[in-house]
Amino acid sequence: MTTLLRSFVKSANTPTTDFPLNNLPYGVFSIGGDAPRQGVAIGDFVLDVHALEESGRLSYSGTLMKGSWNAFMASGKTEWVRFRQELTNLLAEGSDAQSVLEPHLVAMKKAALHMPFTVSEYTDFYAGKHHAFNVGTMFRGPENALPPNWLHIPIGYNGRASSVAVSGTPVRRPMGQLKGPNDDMPRFGPSQRFDIELEMGAIVGQASDGPISVAEAFEIIFGYVLLNDWSARDIQAWEYQPLGPFQAKATMTTVSPWIVTAEALENFRISTPEREVPLLPHLHEPGPMLYDIDLEVGLTPESGTETIITRTNYREMYYSAAQQLAHHTTSGCPMRVGDLLGSGTISGPGKNNRGSLLELSWGGKEPLEIDGGTRSFIEDGDTLVLRGHASGNGFRIGFGECSGKLLPAKT
Amino acid sequence: MTTLLRSFVKSANTPTTDFPLNNLPYGVFSIGGDAPRQGVAIGDFVLDVHALEESGRLSYSGTLMKGSWNAFMASGKTEWVRFRQELTNLLAEGSDAQSVLEPHLVAMKKAALHMPFTVSEYTDFYAGKHHAFNVGTMFRGPENALPPNWLHIPIGYNGRASSVAVSGTPVRRPMGQLKGPNDDMPRFGPSQRFDIELEMGAIVGQASDGPISVAEAFEIIFGYVLLNDWSARDIQAWEYQPLGPFQAKATMTTVSPWIVTAEALENFRISTPEREVPLLPHLHEPGPMLYDIDLEVGLTPESGTETIITRTNYREMYYSAAQQLAHHTTSGCPMRVGDLLGSGTISGPGKNNRGSLLELSWGGKEPLEIDGGTRSFIEDGDTLVLRGHASGNGFRIGFGECSGKLLPAKT
Repeated sequence: MTTLLRSFVKSANTPTTDFPLNNLPYGVFSIGGDAPRQGVAIGDFVLDVHALEESGRLSYSGTLMKGSWNAFMASGKTEWVRFRQELTNLLAEGSDAQSVLEPHLVAMKKAALHMPFTVSEYTDFYAGKHHAFNVGTMFRGPENALPPNWLHIPIGYNGRASSVAVSGTPVRRPMGQLKGPNDDMPRFGPSQRFDIELEMGAIVGQASDGPISVAEAFEIIFGYVLLNDWSARDIQAWEYQPLGPFQAKATMTTVSPWIVTAEALENFRISTPEREVPLLPHLHEPGPMLYDIDLEVGLTPESGTETIITRTNYREMYYSAAQQLAHHTTSGCPMRVGDLLGSGTISGPGKNNRGSLLELSWGGKEPLEIDGGTRSFIEDGDTLVLRGHASGNGFRIGFGECSGKLLPAKT
Repeated sequence: MTTLLRSFVKSANTPTTDFPLNNLPYGVFSIGGDAPRQGVAIGDFVLDVHALEESGRLSYSGTLMKGSWNAFMASGKTEWVRFRQELTNLLAEGSDAQSVLEPHLVAMKKAALHMPFTVSEYTDFYAGKHHAFNVGTMFRGPENALPPNWLHIPIGYNGRASSVAVSGTPVRRPMGQLKGPNDDMPRFGPSQRFDIELEMGAIVGQASDGPISVAEAFEIIFGYVLLNDWSARDIQAWEYQPLGPFQAKATMTTVSPWIVTAEALENFRISTPEREVPLLPHLHEPGPMLYDIDLEVGLTPESGTETIITRTNYREMYYSAAQQLAHHTTSGCPMRVGDLLGSGTISGPGKNNRGSLLELSWGGKEPLEIDGGTRSFIEDGDTLVLRGHASGNGFRIGFGECSGKLLPAKT
């Protein structure tokens, strides 16, 4: 485990900041109504790397002046490594660039944060075993909980890139066709079982044109975000056979505003759990490709204080993002810079480690206690916040918040 | 029914050309290795509208010089109507612009055709009743053939935009995880049941941000293409529960190279078939929104001549593209310029009207007779061609070919 790298930015040297010099995550920010520009989080500040490239202090072929990190990602791994190294040196305690950089440090409090990258396409997986087992048990009983393919392939479905939004964007309770098990006919109305899914998102940083191996997939994942896959359980129940979830998952998917790079997480790599049945060779992991990242979700009602409703860890996933990405290309599917892969809901083994309200309230049968009441599913006015970090020795690699408030349906 | 509009381009005045003056579909072409540019098909020629805007003869804010029709689509319906009207006048018999236009008519034979638009996201539906009934009968018997939701919503799934390619692009037989019903364990190998799906694709020409009505959806559909949703039936059988098709559909989706506009098809509008159960109000069609378009598929083996393996019509769909698009937005899903919606496989009522080999060979039990042999599924070296046209009085509104040749798997 490495130790804290000290920066001349004092707020970056505290054990509780999400953004020490060891992290350096990439985002897009604006001040007032100005155009969004690329920045790097350090302590309580955002370093305006757009301005630094504009002034010639940094030189990355203009990829720091695009208002999105896609062009930088496309420039390739050599540039990724060079940039991170250069930033690490520039921002270090004792750096002789301090006086040049300080005018370009913007207080994060004053900055509006935007989508850090343009999502090319969005895929969501179902690769957390506790989650799949919990959901399967509710619907089919514990004997048939896992679908037959589940232990052999990281199953997933294509989601909707246009619905991905940055933390802080309010989400509108969706309308949809609903039909309860005892209804004769469907009806059209607001979802009554609107939920979160606590996930990590992996961002593809290099294009590929044909099948790639798990090792190759690992190399082209640029970084990670927290991801909340808002889900309308009642819309899903009626629509999902036989083609999978569609409108139930299309209202919004929220991501945290900072891309935490694979490089920053390098020291927190960990293996996936032991296989229950052997995987076919094309899905073998040549090394640890998952990460040890603590995760939690807070729920704050319209008038009330926050209750932490779950705590879990990314290491609970049965498949890594690299395995998911390799599987995604088996048929020859081309991948693009900016593709986003949702991990699937990350539930842990215990009752308080579940990554969705569906599981936490066991389908509404065991409502959760929260500040001033109970919850089976999300109520209008509730704000849901995902948080996560890897823990180093005296520092953390954090993701910032992934939050969203539920607005009432427009009927 | 309108009659043929005569053009000074003689080859546009024949009853068998796909591209009379009544059509004017939009494509992207190149000559030699030059950069792709926008063009309009007329008889045996492509009118180079890029050159005409460059020279100032046409004025559409530069949207004809983008190498793709997305910017023109985004410019809105007033511009769509103005452009079509201007082209109709310019290319008419007796037009005084003939001498100005003739140098910009490129022989289609000499042109390479490219994707006419950038696919933002791709959605595929399952909205042909004969197809759903046939497939359901094979897997679940005729009593349970249609899923319970089928008559109430146009069910669909998100596909993969990165895999959409223009006619003529060879398709590689995919690898994938396969498990037969009698196998103990899955294995990894080339798909043995690779298939076509004969579909129409509808192209979204204006963005929307929340739920839209069927009438609004109809207004923002810019045009249509033929679409072949190549499908690996054996990969699909193993992967699709419970999240729907994924790698089975990600190898390639081929589209015809010319966007036939909704305006060109206006005189061929027709109502969807009678409802078997009433639809909820949000899916009511306020008028005829389907089109009468004859469709066929030809199969040519590596050494052999073409056999027409099916003939059907777009009017067989149970849901129109407008209904599909409206359903797509019910949950608030944002739609973008360049979104592509596949209709679902268009099978007709008879044995020779089926839109996939799965149905034509009844799951391989009744192989098709073709030139020099039989087929249950596609064999390496086979070329599949989709064709389609609406029939006017002495003219046709055609789509050009949507073709692809199957290359052997790379094992």
